[in-house]
Amino acid sequence: MARRNLPLAEVYRHLEPGPVVLLTTSQRGKPNVMTMSWHTMMEFEPPLVGCVVSGRDFSFAALKATKECVIAIPTVEIARKVIGCGNCSGREVDKFARFGLTPGTAAQVQAPLIEECYANFECRVADTKMVAKYNFFVLEVLKAWIDPAQKNPKTIHHRGKGVMMVAGETMKLASKMK
Amino acid sequence: MARRNLPLAEVYRHLEPGPVVLLTTSQRGKPNVMTMSWHTMMEFEPPLVGCVVSGRDFSFAALKATKECVIAIPTVEIARKVIGCGNCSGREVDKFARFGLTPGTAAQVQAPLIEECYANFECRVADTKMVAKYNFFVLEVLKAWIDPAQKNPKTIHHRGKGVMMVAGETMKLASKMK
Repeated sequence: MARRNLPLAEVYRHLEPGPVVLLTTSQRGKPNVMTMSWHTMMEFEPPLVGCVVSGRDFSFAALKATKECVIAIPTVEIARKVIGCGNCSGREVDKFARFGLTPGTAAQVQAPLIEECYANFECRVADTKMVAKYNFFVLEVLKAWIDPAQKNPKTIHHRGKGVMMVAGETMKLASKMK
Repeated sequence: MARRNLPLAEVYRHLEPGPVVLLTTSQRGKPNVMTMSWHTMMEFEPPLVGCVVSGRDFSFAALKATKECVIAIPTVEIARKVIGCGNCSGREVDKFARFGLTPGTAAQVQAPLIEECYANFECRVADTKMVAKYNFFVLEVLKAWIDPAQKNPKTIHHRGKGVMMVAGETMKLASKMK
């Protein structure tokens, strides 16, 4: 997928609506990817993102050890791959191979981009104080990439138990909010 | 709006998709409401919700002092009221009166429900350790209400600067995920 640099100040516009994302890590040369919906923006710039990565997830140890990851935002076209990544573990499976996801080289982290995703945000772990109690990591986005062709990406939003809401129409209201 | 009790274990299915929510507080008998998109689930049951309430928001002091709030989830029918609540401050305005929102009596907290919203979650502040650094509150949902008539609520999802994505169709994929 084509990609251009996205200004860091624009990152929140893609995560704030609450899409399901893929989180990639790489430890000892072995990339992995997990599906995640428990994330929130915490600061505009530099963009801070808080997220829960369960201690049961294989990605947890890699994230904790390497302090790096990529948050990639998929669209409905690859919804089955996204759910597939949530239904198995990197302990047993090379998910990139199984689901036909293409790892791309990131600029600032070892974790891979995902070529099939319309946005890719390279992150470092900025704060681990809430990890012990809540498995909650604070990430800083270091570098952001976006597919310039996708003006209205059909992101997917998990309603639990495999039920996905697909992004519908957008409307613009007069707002003083960022 | 009619409402029935929602089991606490089902709360995540409404917040995980990332809707814009209204957060109400009540301090010294004065109710207030703000618009919020920076929230995430942190635990299934009891449901924990993490959210950022800026120190610039009038609600910040009330939330910190009373340690109670309600998270109410609006749908597209009242999108203008929701944006309106984000464009002014409870310091100057009685937002319930200005936007025609109807406060309802909650069961376990002083903060009001919002009758026009399809879901209302009564919350207490469970952890304030991340407030000083990030304005990040951990809330526990004590009691949840939902409108039983709304099977596919058209929630709204903020893409920044007043651009709202409206929830589209849902699809069900085979999933082992909660």
